[in-house]
Amino acid sequence: MNSRASCFLLGSLLLSTTSALAESAPPAAQPDVVPHTQPRQVILIIGDGMDEQQITIARNYLQGAAGQLLLDRMPLRSSVQIQTTEDRVDGKPVYVADSANTATTMATGTITSIGRISTSAGADENLTTIAELASAAGLRTGIVTTSSVTDATPAAFATHISLRLCEDAATIEDITYHGIPLGNCKGDLKANGGKGSIAEQLAQSQLDVILGGGSARFEPMAEGETISTLDLARRNGFEVVTDAAQLAAASEKTTANEKLLGLFAPGSLPVRLMGEGGREAELPKRSWLNYLHPYLGSVALPSPMACVPNPEASSVPTLRQMADTALERLSAANDKGFFLMIESASIDKQSHERKPCGSIGELEQLEEALASALAFAASHPNTLVMVTADHSQAAQLVPAESLFSEFPIPIFTPGKVARITTPEGGLMAVNYATNNFKMEEHTGAAVPLFSNDEGLERIPPFIQQSQVFTITRDYLGL
Amino acid sequence: MNSRASCFLLGSLLLSTTSALAESAPPAAQPDVVPHTQPRQVILIIGDGMDEQQITIARNYLQGAAGQLLLDRMPLRSSVQIQTTEDRVDGKPVYVADSANTATTMATGTITSIGRISTSAGADENLTTIAELASAAGLRTGIVTTSSVTDATPAAFATHISLRLCEDAATIEDITYHGIPLGNCKGDLKANGGKGSIAEQLAQSQLDVILGGGSARFEPMAEGETISTLDLARRNGFEVVTDAAQLAAASEKTTANEKLLGLFAPGSLPVRLMGEGGREAELPKRSWLNYLHPYLGSVALPSPMACVPNPEASSVPTLRQMADTALERLSAANDKGFFLMIESASIDKQSHERKPCGSIGELEQLEEALASALAFAASHPNTLVMVTADHSQAAQLVPAESLFSEFPIPIFTPGKVARITTPEGGLMAVNYATNNFKMEEHTGAAVPLFSNDEGLERIPPFIQQSQVFTITRDYLGL
Repeated sequence: MNSRASCFLLGSLLLSTTSALAESAPPAAQPDVVPHTQPRQVILIIGDGMDEQQITIARNYLQGAAGQLLLDRMPLRSSVQIQTTEDRVDGKPVYVADSANTATTMATGTITSIGRISTSAGADENLTTIAELASAAGLRTGIVTTSSVTDATPAAFATHISLRLCEDAATIEDITYHGIPLGNCKGDLKANGGKGSIAEQLAQSQLDVILGGGSARFEPMAEGETISTLDLARRNGFEVVTDAAQLAAASEKTTANEKLLGLFAPGSLPVRLMGEGGREAELPKRSWLNYLHPYLGSVALPSPMACVPNPEASSVPTLRQMADTALERLSAANDKGFFLMIESASIDKQSHERKPCGSIGELEQLEEALASALAFAASHPNTLVMVTADHSQAAQLVPAESLFSEFPIPIFTPGKVARITTPEGGLMAVNYATNNFKMEEHTGAAVPLFSNDEGLERIPPFIQQSQVFTITRDYLGL
Repeated sequence: MNSRASCFLLGSLLLSTTSALAESAPPAAQPDVVPHTQPRQVILIIGDGMDEQQITIARNYLQGAAGQLLLDRMPLRSSVQIQTTEDRVDGKPVYVADSANTATTMATGTITSIGRISTSAGADENLTTIAELASAAGLRTGIVTTSSVTDATPAAFATHISLRLCEDAATIEDITYHGIPLGNCKGDLKANGGKGSIAEQLAQSQLDVILGGGSARFEPMAEGETISTLDLARRNGFEVVTDAAQLAAASEKTTANEKLLGLFAPGSLPVRLMGEGGREAELPKRSWLNYLHPYLGSVALPSPMACVPNPEASSVPTLRQMADTALERLSAANDKGFFLMIESASIDKQSHERKPCGSIGELEQLEEALASALAFAASHPNTLVMVTADHSQAAQLVPAESLFSEFPIPIFTPGKVARITTPEGGLMAVNYATNNFKMEEHTGAAVPLFSNDEGLERIPPFIQQSQVFTITRDYLGL
């Protein structure tokens, strides 16, 4: 090649790196057209409910108001449009999502309705997931989560069912909560031509690694069998581990044919941080005079509190430990690549319960898992690391002292508030006021998406959530 | 130059375009080191309170749940860390900002305390603004806003005072609200060695264009003068216009020495959209049984409403009309460049008042002004267009039907909610519940920043708000 030609090539290569970013036209993901000669990996990290409020709250606590999270140092940042539909074919848009329909969109590229796990709105058809495509092409696949592995987000990557609550062989027939009937998925029973509960589908899945909580979901007898769902998983080739020591030992195994199922708690894994004395956000205390008129009397805000370690967290592996094991199992002696979904689930769950310290600790766990993923990518070329959220959540960072504190009246939230002392000596108020129920609502704002360098030419500054699927599929050449 | 050398140069040039984006280390703005040979312009558009919730709410209404705003098609998107401090030297961080301290940070690069206009926390020293730097270097400067031009955001770019409420020659001595004293800025009186009220400082400023509301602020007699503040502005070379026709005529003038002051309403400009019948977010209506226990009885959510045009808006120019005039006045026969700040102010103000339609209409106005700015940049090379927000706001997009609607109890927000019918036929619920006062609070989440191609090599994916100042200063070579 003469120097003029090589110069052109250099220019073209470099230009190709910038073109997707530089264009002003509506952005679209760029499919990879070159056949892959080396194994490719996608590590998709999902912070459930990890919106801008949650990230800022965690940043202020973990790194300080002037500090940076690892997320903030990622070379690419995009914004993701969340889409949901009514539960009918060609339904109208619904403006606030749940984790089931958003995980379905990321896993399958298809927009669906609230509560559905990789099934279509209205028609209830099974939607092929990215993990299923990857398995079919000979890539390895894994899901890792701090929730039950049967919870909506992990479930959507490998199972298909009409309602997320049908997590095991018992609930598929009848779901009740404190005696209140919440439905069932009888149409999804194997006897009725379905694929069974989420736990049963996971037990029979092609996934190579499943790590998280949810052991209670694997206890019921599998439908049409005389063995438990856990034994069904063993029969399908899964090695089962139940504590951190077993998990560490499992890291070292590299038998390509053996699959790994780790279940470290009956339900969600205990979170790392909690409010002092188990405190959560609380209602301000109003004097009797204040009940006569909200501008009279006095109102005491909840006293400041620290976040403290949750002693129960030491009983389970960290998200990073699970991620590390998954990365070792998926990459060992593998010339075809893999897809791995890692979820920090309780950013959302703790926000539902108005527990800001719990959400902060979960975001710290996500940061640690991200550090592992980036270290893996640094030593394994062709690894795309993406971090995103599925939907926004209720928590709001509000003033510790009202913007209107000059006015000589009590000013307070109608909802519940926690005032947290931060390690740098500040006072941070987190407000929850989306409803009067035991659990807060999700909210509808777009969510951030971050990636390592591999995303630079592939991910524009604004995408639809379904593009998480197409970007992954195209990167893996599926 | 031989071909090897030119190849290196091409490679270097192209690499310089990607380096800021591609590096994984903590990002920092790259100062421009090459002397400018052509005029350079920065157009900084601020959506006051325009956080991810506000953007999503506006997108859903204006473009649909699957649609894109012009903002979404910008080639660069970053996130901005908001910083505030207590009002003392080396004060602790404060986690929720106001528009005064955040505009100060963008205008001067210095973090300050709530309520301050380009003065330092504790020490109360004047901080040099980007507009002052630009004027001193011979560039033209302008501020355009839908609020009073004396409001915090525009004020911080050209004035210096200890408290934002000291907007005119009357309030600088005594600020009261419904008889409640809210302070004063007597130390800022000229008689006391200060620079006078915000209106007086604007009247005597070096700004070339000032457009917005706030005519009432220019009526009081200027301190130490026998003329009104408006006449003080005239004496300082400002041509004064007060309606859209005069504004249009002023566009055509290109006398470089004449300055333009447009004041189109006594205070903030009327907003474009409003709730049907003037409705805003409302409290759900609870049955008497529900007051006995929140799980009993029934609760009626506010009935759905449409957004309708506000007839008062036709009395004032649009933000785009003001931006167009400003761009013509600042660019005509100008070989030195300019700095222009354009603010859509009432995204925030309408959110304080729990009026989602008003915020949506203001965001539409921002989009139109952005279209003008991008059109200008397309025909004027070396124009950096940035769009950002100063802080986050109270509004939350919540489910129109609760995520927990299966439970047979009334579920409703403890705050106020508006349910808006969208043009695409959906139902969008916007919740306000940060306090019990007449006006909602700000919130603390990081805010987005967008730019045109000129920002690509200059703005990393995560910046501190003070970098809005340094990026502007470096781009303009100041």
